Amino acid sequence: MEKLTMEKFEKAAETVKKVILPTKLEYSESLSDRTGGRIYLKPENLQYTGAYKIRGAYYKISTLNEEQLKKGLITASAGNHAQGVAYAAKKFGCHATIVMPTATPLIKVNRTKGYGAEVVLYGDVYDDSYEKALDIAEKEGMTFIHPFDDLDVAAGQGSIAMEIFQELPTVDHIIVPVGGGGLITGISTFAKMLNPKIKVIGVEPAGAASMTAALANGGPVPLPSASTIADGTAVKCVGSSIFPYCHDNIHKMITVNDDDLIPAFLEMVENHKMIVENSGLLPVAALDKLDLKGKKAVLVLSGGNMDVITMSSVVQHGLIRQDRIFTVSVLLPDKAGELVKVATAIANAGGNVIKLEHNQFVSINRNASVELRITMEAFGTEHKKSILSALENAGYAPESVTTKLY
Amino acid sequence: MEKLTMEKFEKAAETVKKVILPTKLEYSESLSDRTGGRIYLKPENLQYTGAYKIRGAYYKISTLNEEQLKKGLITASAGNHAQGVAYAAKKFGCHATIVMPTATPLIKVNRTKGYGAEVVLYGDVYDDSYEKALDIAEKEGMTFIHPFDDLDVAAGQGSIAMEIFQELPTVDHIIVPVGGGGLITGISTFAKMLNPKIKVIGVEPAGAASMTAALANGGPVPLPSASTIADGTAVKCVGSSIFPYCHDNIHKMITVNDDDLIPAFLEMVENHKMIVENSGLLPVAALDKLDLKGKKAVLVLSGGNMDVITMSSVVQHGLIRQDRIFTVSVLLPDKAGELVKVATAIANAGGNVIKLEHNQFVSINRNASVELRITMEAFGTEHKKSILSALENAGYAPESVTTKLY
Repeated sequence: MEKLTMEKFEKAAETVKKVILPTKLEYSESLSDRTGGRIYLKPENLQYTGAYKIRGAYYKISTLNEEQLKKGLITASAGNHAQGVAYAAKKFGCHATIVMPTATPLIKVNRTKGYGAEVVLYGDVYDDSYEKALDIAEKEGMTFIHPFDDLDVAAGQGSIAMEIFQELPTVDHIIVPVGGGGLITGISTFAKMLNPKIKVIGVEPAGAASMTAALANGGPVPLPSASTIADGTAVKCVGSSIFPYCHDNIHKMITVNDDDLIPAFLEMVENHKMIVENSGLLPVAALDKLDLKGKKAVLVLSGGNMDVITMSSVVQHGLIRQDRIFTVSVLLPDKAGELVKVATAIANAGGNVIKLEHNQFVSINRNASVELRITMEAFGTEHKKSILSALENAGYAPESVTTKLY
Repeated sequence: MEKLTMEKFEKAAETVKKVILPTKLEYSESLSDRTGGRIYLKPENLQYTGAYKIRGAYYKISTLNEEQLKKGLITASAGNHAQGVAYAAKKFGCHATIVMPTATPLIKVNRTKGYGAEVVLYGDVYDDSYEKALDIAEKEGMTFIHPFDDLDVAAGQGSIAMEIFQELPTVDHIIVPVGGGGLITGISTFAKMLNPKIKVIGVEPAGAASMTAALANGGPVPLPSASTIADGTAVKCVGSSIFPYCHDNIHKMITVNDDDLIPAFLEMVENHKMIVENSGLLPVAALDKLDLKGKKAVLVLSGGNMDVITMSSVVQHGLIRQDRIFTVSVLLPDKAGELVKVATAIANAGGNVIKLEHNQFVSINRNASVELRITMEAFGTEHKKSILSALENAGYAPESVTTKLY
């Protein structure tokens, strides 16, 4: 494999241009206001297949010779890389086999098949599928497309840096999610060639900080586990062929807790009308840990493939965290008119009831024998407090309890 | 007010270009596959303020003289028009007053204030706020900016047609949501000037089909009521100054039931990673009623301002409708090991349990005295059927019941 050179990056950018959507930078007014910088989003969640992976896969395929193309490609993935390889292979007109763990959700299997790939279900965990794919590759003479530890794949991902510079040559920082390191290798290496002053910052989930560990160690080192809701970046060990480039070109790494991805999801939905998957939200969640005052920064939103049930649940957790949904328990005397009094106090304070449980006989005290559990919608912490005060002023002793929507 | 001429449209397009985001057409692979045409989205949900309204508002303001600008603008709206006028006025550096019904959610009030407008809360319903705004306008000499019945406002919205033709001059159909008629007046009138062969199709909610009624009647006629979840298009009577243009330029109108907006929402989220509000989904929901085989069609997604609690609820309803979430009730003998048997049958069939209720003593029959209510996630109707069969084969009689997530 050749080294990563300017020529290679230019060729990769030219090549992938034929099949990708040239996603346009989107200026974020809300994030710029929050940080005091000028914040732009690179929305690869809107990319074909919902993620940037097609860039690396397509460029890799374009470097293969006729015999390799005839024998076909193989990879192992249950995520965005599977669809990326399938899509790229279809565009190139060659055969792709994707090995997926047997427990892969049918919807992902079907989407991958939908791009014309052959899917082999094998293994309980990813590592088994990976071994299987290497096995088949060797037996059948197929080319294995690594999701990140491949310089050609990384060169393809570098096309993102080209597009960023074409639109915003004065960019100061590029902030990039990091899993195995392929994306940040391409972006940081190419960006530093285009402008050595640029700072490329990587963001990892705290539960899978394999690049942080590798940089501290001076080389890739496997983590005992990788646990995070940002499944696209749950990688135990970064790639060894790409690592030297990461070492030289990453300005610094930031880690983010899973909890901080939830408000980032709401920020994207409410202010940008976009769905971004957890891994893609890492740069958004990292903003509070960076000083971007007066700087122009691009956040690479790497993908948008979040299933809708997870989405619903993230929204609800987010609203609860921000006190935009909360539950109080109020004990009432068991007599007529009490429900009216409580409802009136809440309504006057502008609370919007979304769920109500009325439990009789919680105690034998006739003056506090009925429990009302009221789940309400409010505008945030201040509003919640004013609703609680209104209930207190009406003579009740509201107690905050855990919201259970399900 | 001048008539709508090519010159006016060109001027409007030039003027609004300074402040809007030139939203780029997005090719939709999934909708193209479904219709057999080439379907493009015009994502005005990604527009600043989350809707197209800033176009008309800004152009209208640009036509005012210095004295008018000094006296300021006023309008009545609880929706996208409020933010559009506030944003446009700020960009122009003039004062805007927005009258909103007193029950307007605080978040909308705050967003409108956030763009620098003065908000007056007045009236229980929109009509009262509207009268109040006209009152203030007259007393204070302010210019009232009508949300739709104004040729200048419509000319501003026409800039969408200009952008569509710049990107896709060979477009055959443009499909547009219709409320009061301002958006479709601008788009259809300008589009027909650019290419008389183009067909501009309007889509209304069945519960507020005021343009359909006006076209049948030969002039605007008030509906007795306007009831739809597509609140941005819940207008009882279309505008009278714009109506002649609608009459001449709209190819035809389609109506869509509220229920059909739910799968359209999921389509946008799952395949396009975008949030589109109910009104903006009308063209997507109308696709099944149109023959677009071999045609190039642009769907105007007018806005994306849907609150996140509604969003969560739409997602869940959508999944239930598509049998991707469903609930069965199973009666069990009251003996050890039964729960294991049921759980095994479901797991083997690939069902994913998301909620479980276990109710003892539902009958005195020891062989059917425990009820399990199981809410599961599946991939759709076929998969649901296979899970039900698996339960039957295990000796149970599953009964489908209504899913209650809350």
